[in-house]
Parts: sequence; structure tokens; C-alpha cells
Amino acid sequence: MTYERSDGRKYDELRKTKITRNYLMHPEGSVLIEQGNTKIIITASVEPNVARWMRDTNNSWITSEYSMLPRATDRRKRRPRNGRHTPGRSVEIQRLIGRSLRAGFNLKNIGEISIYVDCDIIQADGGTRCASITGGFVAAYDALKWAYENRYINRFPEFKQIAAISVGIIDEQALLDLPYEEDSKVDVDMNFVMNEDLNIVEIQGTSEGRVFSRDKLSELLDLAEKGIKELIDYQKEILNIS
Amino acid sequence: MTYERSDGRKYDELRKTKITRNYLMHPEGSVLIEQGNTKIIITASVEPNVARWMRDTNNSWITSEYSMLPRATDRRKRRPRNGRHTPGRSVEIQRLIGRSLRAGFNLKNIGEISIYVDCDIIQADGGTRCASITGGFVAAYDALKWAYENRYINRFPEFKQIAAISVGIIDEQALLDLPYEEDSKVDVDMNFVMNEDLNIVEIQGTSEGRVFSRDKLSELLDLAEKGIKELIDYQKEILNIS
Amino acid sequence: MTYERSDGRKYDELRKTKITRNYLMHPEGSVLIEQGNTKIIITASVEPNVARWMRDTNNSWITSEYSMLPRATDRRKRRPRNGRHTPGRSVEIQRLIGRSLRAGFNLKNIGEISIYVDCDIIQADGGTRCASITGGFVAAYDALKWAYENRYINRFPEFKQIAAISVGIIDEQALLDLPYEEDSKVDVDMNFVMNEDLNIVEIQGTSEGRVFSRDKLSELLDLAEKGIKELIDYQKEILNIS
Amino acid sequence: MTYERSDGRKYDELRKTKITRNYLMHPEGSVLIEQGNTKIIITASVEPNVARWMRDTNNSWITSEYSMLPRATDRRKRRPRNGRHTPGRSVEIQRLIGRSLRAGFNLKNIGEISIYVDCDIIQADGGTRCASITGGFVAAYDALKWAYENRYINRFPEFKQIAAISVGIIDEQALLDLPYEEDSKVDVDMNFVMNEDLNIVEIQGTSEGRVFSRDKLSELLDLAEKGIKELIDYQKEILNIS
Amino acid sequence: MTYERSDGRKYDELRKTKITRNYLMHPEGSVLIEQGNTKIIITASVEPNVARWMRDTNNSWITSEYSMLPRATDRRKRRPRNGRHTPGRSVEIQRLIGRSLRAGFNLKNIGEISIYVDCDIIQADGGTRCASITGGFVAAYDALKWAYENRYINRFPEFKQIAAISVGIIDEQALLDLPYEEDSKVDVDMNFVMNEDLNIVEIQGTSEGRVFSRDKLSELLDLAEKGIKELIDYQKEILNIS
Amino acid sequence: MTYERSDGRKYDELRKTKITRNYLMHPEGSVLIEQGNTKIIITASVEPNVARWMRDTNNSWITSEYSMLPRATDRRKRRPRNGRHTPGRSVEIQRLIGRSLRAGFNLKNIGEISIYVDCDIIQADGGTRCASITGGFVAAYDALKWAYENRYINRFPEFKQIAAISVGIIDEQALLDLPYEEDSKVDVDMNFVMNEDLNIVEIQGTSEGRVFSRDKLSELLDLAEKGIKELIDYQKEILNIS
Repeated sequence: MTYERSDGRKYDELRKTKITRNYLMHPEGSVLIEQGNTKIIITASVEPNVARWMRDTNNSWITSEYSMLPRATDRRKRRPRNGRHTPGRSVEIQRLIGRSLRAGFNLKNIGEISIYVDCDIIQADGGTRCASITGGFVAAYDALKWAYENRYINRFPEFKQIAAISVGIIDEQALLDLPYEEDSKVDVDMNFVMNEDLNIVEIQGTSEGRVFSRDKLSELLDLAEKGIKELIDYQKEILNIS
Repeated sequence: MTYERSDGRKYDELRKTKITRNYLMHPEGSVLIEQGNTKIIITASVEPNVARWMRDTNNSWITSEYSMLPRATDRRKRRPRNGRHTPGRSVEIQRLIGRSLRAGFNLKNIGEISIYVDCDIIQADGGTRCASITGGFVAAYDALKWAYENRYINRFPEFKQIAAISVGIIDEQALLDLPYEEDSKVDVDMNFVMNEDLNIVEIQGTSEGRVFSRDKLSELLDLAEKGIKELIDYQKEILNIS
Repeated sequence: MTYERSDGRKYDELRKTKITRNYLMHPEGSVLIEQGNTKIIITASVEPNVARWMRDTNNSWITSEYSMLPRATDRRKRRPRNGRHTPGRSVEIQRLIGRSLRAGFNLKNIGEISIYVDCDIIQADGGTRCASITGGFVAAYDALKWAYENRYINRFPEFKQIAAISVGIIDEQALLDLPYEEDSKVDVDMNFVMNEDLNIVEIQGTSEGRVFSRDKLSELLDLAEKGIKELIDYQKEILNIS
Repeated sequence: MTYERSDGRKYDELRKTKITRNYLMHPEGSVLIEQGNTKIIITASVEPNVARWMRDTNNSWITSEYSMLPRATDRRKRRPRNGRHTPGRSVEIQRLIGRSLRAGFNLKNIGEISIYVDCDIIQADGGTRCASITGGFVAAYDALKWAYENRYINRFPEFKQIAAISVGIIDEQALLDLPYEEDSKVDVDMNFVMNEDLNIVEIQGTSEGRVFSRDKLSELLDLAEKGIKELIDYQKEILNIS
Repeated sequence: MTYERSDGRKYDELRKTKITRNYLMHPEGSVLIEQGNTKIIITASVEPNVARWMRDTNNSWITSEYSMLPRATDRRKRRPRNGRHTPGRSVEIQRLIGRSLRAGFNLKNIGEISIYVDCDIIQADGGTRCASITGGFVAAYDALKWAYENRYINRFPEFKQIAAISVGIIDEQALLDLPYEEDSKVDVDMNFVMNEDLNIVEIQGTSEGRVFSRDKLSELLDLAEKGIKELIDYQKEILNIS
Repeated sequence: MTYERSDGRKYDELRKTKITRNYLMHPEGSVLIEQGNTKIIITASVEPNVARWMRDTNNSWITSEYSMLPRATDRRKRRPRNGRHTPGRSVEIQRLIGRSLRAGFNLKNIGEISIYVDCDIIQADGGTRCASITGGFVAAYDALKWAYENRYINRFPEFKQIAAISVGIIDEQALLDLPYEEDSKVDVDMNFVMNEDLNIVEIQGTSEGRVFSRDKLSELLDLAEKGIKELIDYQKEILNIS
């Protein structure tokens, strides 16, 4: 490997990841996910109804909101309130999280509830959207379990686990799981969301002025598959899924 | 005591309180304060300038924002963004926190910086505004220390410690430090902010349709003084102030 | 008295106060209150329903809005419209007015109406929140009377009159009813809301960097009681309450 | 006259109109104008600068804002704050007032100030936009006089007095100065703004589904000229203009 | 004629005007109107219900929105979104368009639908509000026809065609149909809306600091009648109304 | 091919695409792009300065806004104004367009201007984001040419052409360039942005509850390369790039 990672990891090595279930007392599902220095509180709230356009379908829905505490990053950011609108970046990310989690559960014919997955970034050090998805799956799982045990839905939905990881290229070197320091000097930056079969749920490759070849895309896919497989295994472990 | 507290505390007993300093990596000051089940992340951010109306005064300023995560409480609340305005209650509270912390430090002639104290309620179980003040003092202290050590201000300001506590009356019984369950059935609800000399910084007595006599006010003051004294002692301990 | 008041009043003397009932033709209750140079138009509007959370309780509700005309003060202020949000100060004040007036009337089991008390400051010279409460009680009284006579409620509610006054300390001298000039140089600034029995409804003591002792609090309470008693008597006179 | 006016006026008779100068203590110009039951507080505020696009022109500017207190009319209206936008009707009216007043004064080469004319409707009974113009001229005159005497402008501008009146047609009968009751059943509704030479400054003829002939337009113009002449004379009297 | 028009037209000559019907595939009515260089896309959308205040009246309603693409004019303008409010000018214009079109159709007792007439200015070169009305009549006509053929209303409403034109005075010369270049140096600027009988629907004469005599008003009316007659004839031709 | 396209196209066939340059008179660059029934007006506006964070870098910037006319689609949508925020979908798309166009031009050291690329969807029938990019490249090219010829930048930037296309899978069949009808029943939906060397600029694969294998990704890439090559060739032709 030509590029030396400042935290000593190998190019294909995940950061240390820890998910704490039942982190808070009020929500139906809640986790603290820590991936390296990135820390996110994720709550999954059950509401016993769905938006108007879904009524009488007997389906449920998962939606997500993503927000940073003002000082999650190096510089304080103003809160998006009092007429200030949600930053475009947050809108993009929360839509991605929602779509990704909905791809994990078959919400058809289980009855009509809404799961609000709130991802609040306590400390940001790269990879917040991917960690929100990986941890969000666990929170949503717990909330759905609560809903089933309390008879808000008629059965626990079929599911395939969902996890996500960032990959990128620095100086021609493909790298797995980028912290902020790498993210800011990367030539190409991709996020992959996959399910437990390593089928693709979402791809977002967003360069800023750079381009990459089809071969490099293939290399990045290999890395992503490796990382996501490890995250899926960790989810299985903490959720006691055999 | 006629009224039995469901958590077994005596009428004049504080909930278990813990302040973790340097809770986050980015902010100049940051604490996690836990008071019973109430949990608040407080960050104090230094910005090397002041609002226009304060320029060329050589004074600094402390301001505060108060916010709840959507699921800090029993029911999920919508975020105050995209034109939804900050709830009136939050506005009132963050103004109180700001005034209280400014009363703790003599910010005159130390140079011009702004300290933003962000209080984000992770889990609410009563007393969030008071805990924000008690913990906010510690975060602001650490931020000012950072600012002094990094020469953003020319000296560490003179200060008097500040702490706050709620008191109330249920069935004629005056009580110290109300959790949500008590807060919701209280006849009178007061918040006292005092400094380390037990001089009064702020009093907020807000009844909802009830009234109370001057004698009861005196009894509540006694309780508040006891609680605040204990919190001041705990602050001294964790800040190593002799 | 060490401190000489520029308007020649004694330290415990109210400003000349005048309440004109039925000031406007449309509202169910309306007054112009003049307290010294402070002038406020207060209207109390009856709406024959209550907010969703109160439906089917058979209770009524009083709420308040507080606003300044752009040129009520020495400098023109921009209107809080077109996305500009209500100033924090106004939010705090209108919540105080609402709570205070609700403490004056027993709105239970009289049927479901809402009273909107709009306090529009025409000219500000200190004490606007207190005058809004003192005058607002009269406007709300008249609106409730109208509602009873027009059978929107099934009986006139039991009530205790409500009035409010500001007190403060300048150069150690406690003073009653502060005009703007005194308000701006006061060391401590408190507002008391009491009912006709001189029981306390609300206390707001908001210093800006100053503190005060428990003894001073007692002295301020004495002054407030004297002022509120006089305002209660004046209300009785103009409302013909014996 | 086929149509009997319920207030007993002749078809070409103005309502009783009274302008009180110097109504408030803070603004540079302020009037209370009462026209029948319509009551408006108008303040004219001097600000010693102009908007960016006018800088370095040596010209001044007059702008206006128009707003109703929530209970100026028969039903309470919500305030246009917290993201609620200014009602379209208010926007239209305040732009009309601004243009009309600017047509009254030659603001070129007198130096750069802005006059904000705030028209706050205390009680509405028809004709509020016209009364705002008629009274606004007086308030702006006083503010410009203040600005000249205090040397914010280098001379008092040349001026032609400005006044405005509404006219309309009910059952083929042309009528002068419509109160709300007539305004709501009128077939055609026009507002004329003229200067003291009875030259036309603005015409707004806004029907709602009705049309009118060129002959009727001529008849309405005759009425408007009569009414505006009387208002101009009254302005002269109270401003001591010979 | 003392004033030479830079585009070679006579003082009483319209610009070349072209209306393309059925310009878009989705809306029930849609036109592109080109008047000189002014180009506007107008869509008329049928919605099968009316606002709450009109329910159960058996009447329909036409409303309008007016907007410019950011670069319809010489300088790019910011879009009125994310809390930025609709410019006052647009509000005024869209209210005018709505009232004018409603005067063209008798919407009583035809059933309850709403027609939204959206006027989006693609390229602005003067006269956009008048062209929006002239073209809007055609789009609304087509939408009502669609509504009748698809049985959303019980009959095609009675109507009188509506058209509008701007007139103005430069150097004492009255001129018909002003492009932007003339509009910007005009002494007086009027817009007339008339129906096919040349009865007046709306008059808006808005000067900016200038005034004009009653005689000039008469001269402008002559010009407007000539122009509107020609536009009415063109509408008849493209709508095949005999 | 198992799936029959209702418009008769082959699975790898683009819709008829037409770009009209210099579509409007005011903007520095402007095109109408028509791709099948999708029609978009794109303007590129030059502003002779950059945002604060880019000052003194000697670099230029391209940014984009994306918006639909209310009736671009089958149902009328409300405009995002007066406090209504930009829809999340629009935010996501306009960020994509901006990043894509910036990848086409080397804006470093050419001087400091901003290019605003406004994409206003006149008629939507699928593929609006991709057509905005393909057409936006031409508009931005023309605007940069204007800026160079008028000496706002010191040289025409180096560039690689940029184009974009949508691909998807229906019933296992990979398809190129999806109209709305196909887009709404697609199992997987991807957008590719590439440069003239067929290197990848952006990938967005957003499924809604579906997943796809790595093999299918490869097949979709083949299709996208074919379509983008044809669009690049067409751009060359109309821009006279050899």
C-alpha cells in the first residue's frame, strides 16, 4: 500500500465499531453507535398510524431524520431553526437512510405504523451517513419488535439485514471506511449500502471535480463487500440472529 | 412528610448527579450531565469575536441554545426546522440559561470572544433547565480556560460558581429537585439560580392556575439553598477548585 | 431615600394609571391602559371553541399575544413577519401574561371557549408586561361577561382579580413601578404577579449579571404588595366590583 | 338618490374626519387619524441612511408598512409572524401608500434619509388605505420637518399635499367615502389618490366580477375630486399651511 | 408624434402578439403567449374542489400565481423559496390577474371546481401582467372547456372575453403597449383590463412621483380601447368564437 | 427483449434529444433541451464575483438550482415559496447537477466568477436530472465563452464534456433512458454522469425496496456508456467542437 493511514489501519480494515442497544429510556428502539470517533444517537419511534397517502394499504413505513448537534464538528454550525432550512446535505442523507432501511424490511401487510428513525450526530469523524444506516437497522429492528410484542403490527416483518460503508481513493489507493481526515483529501468518495446477501441497495459515488474508471469502481466494490460483511456479522451477534 | 416520593428520596434530597467533563473531542468545553434520568450534552464553543453591538467594548459574552432531541421525551416531537419556529418554552429557557451563566463570570475587559453554550437534552426526566445551568457552568468554565490558555482572552475572568435547582409543592409538602412525574402534578413550581454565596441570580416561579403564600415562598427558598449548596460543592470537586 | 426619581415620585409610589374600558367597537373586551407614558391597547376576543387537546373537557382557555408597534420605542424595530420570528422576549412575555390571566379565572366546567388577549404596545416606557396583565384582566373579564350574556358559557367563572407590578433596586434603594429610564439602570429587576389576596401567581426576578440577597427579596416583596393592592382597588372601582 | 345610506350621509358627503398630530412621544412624526369609525395610528420614523441601491444619490426615500391589529375587524385575524407571510392585501396596500407619499415630496438633493411610515389599523370600518395616505402625508410632513430642523436633510423638500378617498357604485348610485358596510355590497370600488391640484397620483379600480362604463368612471372622478379637495383643505388647516 | 419609438411602431400600435394553445401536455389548458419579446408560459389547472369558504355554494373559482424565472430579466433574481417571501410586486400582480379572469366568466351554479392559472415569465420585456391576463383568458377558457367535457362542471359558463394592455406617457406623448425600455422612462404608467364590450374591469394607474390630469386620463383610455379591441379580436380568431 | 417499450424504442435506444442554444435573450448562456417529452429551460448566468469562502483564490465556481413549474407534471404542485421549503428531491438534484458541471470544467486560476445554472422543468416525462446535466453543460459552456470574450475570466477553462443518462431494470430487462411511465414501474433506477472519456463522475443508484446484483450493475454500466457516448457526440455537433 502506497498510502499510509494515520490511524495505522490497513487499507481494507474497518474502524472499531460498537453498537449499544437500548441506550435511552423513552424510545421503542435506541442505539449509540460508535465507529472510530464518530458517535451517533439513533432512536426509532413507533407511531400508530401512517401518512395520508398510505392509509388503508395495511403497510407500514420507515422514515428518517438526520441532524448534527451544533458542535459535532470542528466548527460550530447554526441550528436549522427559525426559518433557516435544513441543509441540503442533511436532506440528501436522511432520504438515503430512509430508503436504505425500507429496503431491509418487508413492511407490506403487517398493519399500519410509522417508524421514525432519528439520527443525531453527537460527534462527527467521517462516515456518519453509513453508520446511521448500520446502527439505524438495529434501532428499527428493536422498534419493530416492540411494535409486534405490543400488537401494533400483526407479525414481525421478513427482513434482510442492511449495512453501509464508505470507500474512497487516495493517491490511486482504494481505502475502506474513511475518517474525516481521509474523507477531506480523497479523490473519489463512494458510499455503498448492501443487504446481508451483498446485493446492492444504494450506490452513491460523488466526486468533486474528479472522475474514475470502471476498473476502479470494481476495486471499490470489492472493499465495500468486505466491510459490509463484517458489519452484518456484528449486527447478527448483538441482535442474537443465528 | 405527608407526600411519599416514588423514588424513595427524602423531601430535601437531590437526585444522583454526575458531570462528565471533556465528553466530546471537538468543543472547547463539553460535559455530559446526568441528574437522575435526565441526561444533557452541553458544549461550550469559543468564537473569537462578538456580536456587532458589543464590538470595541473589550468585553466577552456568553449565550445559550437549548434544544431537545425529538425523542428525549415520552412522545416524539417534531424538530423546529424548515420554518417551524423554536418552541416558546425553549426560547424562554435558553434566555434564562444565558443570563444565569453571564452572572457567573465577570466578562469585562478580558477581550472579545463569544461562548456558545449548547444544551441538547438527550433524555428528559424533569429539571432540564436547572441541570443545563449547573452543567453549563462547568462547560463554560472549561471553554474560558481553553480561551485563556490559547490567548483568545487576556486573563481568566473572576467568577462565582452558578448552580440551579427546581423546587415545588405537592399536597402542601415542599420538595427538592422534581423528576417529571412530580413536576406534572405539582401545585407550584419554582426554579432558583444562585451563586456560590447563595445570593439569588434568578427566580422563576410559574404556577399554572395556582397561587402560593409568602410563607411557602420562604420554605421553598430554604430547600433551594440546601440543594444548590450541594451542587456548588460537587462542581468545586470536579473542577478542583479549593 | 438615597435615589432621587426623575419624575418626582416617592420610592413606593405607582405611576398614574388609567384604564379605559370598551376602547374599540369590534372586540368582546377591549381596554386602553395607560401607566405613566406606557400605553397599551388590549383586546380580548372570544372564539367559540378550544384547541384540539382541550376538546370535550368542558373547560375554557385564555391565551395571549404580546407585540410592539414598530415605533413604540425610541428606535424603530422591524416587524416580526415574513419569516422573521417573534422575538424571544415577546414569546417569554406572552406566555407569562397567559399563565397569569388563567390563574385569575376558574375556567373549569363553564363550557369550551377560547379568549385571545392581544396586548399591542402603542407606546413603551417600562412595565409593559405588568400593565398588560393588569389591563388584560379587565379585558378578559369583559369578554367573559359578553360570553356569558351571549350564552357561549354556562356561567360566569369564579375569579380572583390579578394585577402585576415591577420593582427594582438602584443604588441599594428598592423602587416601585419602574419607567424605562430606571429600568435601564437597575441592578435587580423583578416582576410580581399576585391575586387580590396578595398570594403569589408568578415571580420573575431576572438580573443581568447582578445578584441579590434574601433580605432584599423580602424588601421588594413588601413594595410589590403595596403597588398591587392599589391596582386591585382601581380594577374593582372601574369594574364596579364591591 | 335612490340608495339610502344607513349613516344618513348624502351620496357626496365625507365621514367626519379628525387627525391628531404628535399622538405619540417617540416617533419623529405621528398621527391618529379617525375617519368615521376607522382609526389608524400612523408613525413616521426618520432613519439617517438609505437602502444600498440609493446610496450616493443625495436623495431621500419614503417607504410604508401597513398592518392591522388582530382585532381591528369583526373577526380576529392571526398575526403574520413566525413564518406566516404578510397577507397579499397588505403588501398591495403598503406599496400603494409608499408610492403615493413619495409623489407628494420632491426628495431629490435634500440628502439621504429614509422615512418609514407605519400605518397600524386600530379599528377598521372601510377606507383604511385611503385614510393611511391622507394621515400619512401629515406624519411624513412632520418627520421631514423634524429632519430638517435637526439637520438630517439640507432643506425642507418642495411638496404638493396628497390625499385619497374611496368611491363606489351601489345600485347605479355613485357614492363617496364608503364604510365597511357599503364596501361589502358595492358593485364597483375605486380608490383615487390626488395631489392638491387635483392631478391624479394613483387610480385603483378593482371590481370583483363587475365591470363599469367610461361614463360611470367620469361620475366617480367628480365625486373623488370633491372629497379630496375637502381633505386637502383640512390638512392645510391642521398643518397651518396657508 | 414627438416621441420616436425605437422599435419603429406608431404610438397606437400593438407589438406583434402570438398565442400558442395547448403548449404543454399535462395541463388542462396551457398557452405560450409572446408579445414582442415578452414570453410567458401560462397553464390552467383544474382541481375538482374549492377552498373551504366556498364549499356548498355550487360556484367555481379562478385564482392565479405569477412568477418570473430567475433569469427572465436582465439580472438574475433569487427564487422566492426557503423562507424568502414572494416579492410584493408578484403578489400585487397575481391578485390582479385572478380578479380580472374571474370577471370574464360567470362561475355561479356551474359546480365546484378551482382553476389555478400559473403565469411563469420566461422572458420579460414589459407588459407581463397584461399579457398574463390576455393569454390567461385563453388558458382558462380551455381548462373550463375540458372541465365541462369531462363533466366536472354542469355547463360551460357564460363569459365575456377579457384582455389587458399597458399605456403610458413619455414627453407628453401617449403610447400603447410599452416594452421595458419605454416602461422604464415613462412619466405615467397605466394598465387597463376590459371585457369584450370595452367595459372597464380594472384600472391601475401607478405613477412614481409623477401626476397627470384628467384630460390625459381620457387620452390614455382611447388608446387602451383600441389595443384591447385588437386583442379581443385575436382571441376570437384563435378560439374560433364567432 | 422480454419487455416491450410502449414508445417502440429498443432497450438501448435514446429518446429523440434536441438542444436549442441561445433560447432566451437575457442570459449569458441558455438552452431549451427536449428529450422525448421532457422539456427544460436552462439558463447560465454570469456573476462577476464568488461566495465569501472562495474569495482571493482566483478560482471560479458553478452552482445550480433545479425547479419544476407547478404544472410540469400530471398534478399541479404548490410552489416552494412563502416559507414552504425547497422539496428534498429538488435539493438533492440541484446538488448533483452542480457537482457534475464543476467536474467538466477546470475552474482554477481563471479568475473569480460564479455561474448560476438554473434548470426549470417546463414539462416532465422522466430523466429531468440527467437532461439538466446534459443541457446544462452546453449552457455553462456558452456562459463561460461569454465571460471569456467579455474579459470576466482570463482564459477559457480546460474542459471535458459532461453528459448523463438514466438506466433501469424492468422484469430483468436493462433499459436505457426511462420516460416517466417506465420510471414508475422500474425495479432499479440508476443515473450515471460521465465525461467524454466515459470516466465516471457520479453514480446514483437508488432503489426503493429492491436490490440488485453486481452483474446487473455491470449490464447497466454498458447501457449508460452507449447512451452517454451518443449525447457527447450530439453536444460536440451543436457546439462545433471537433
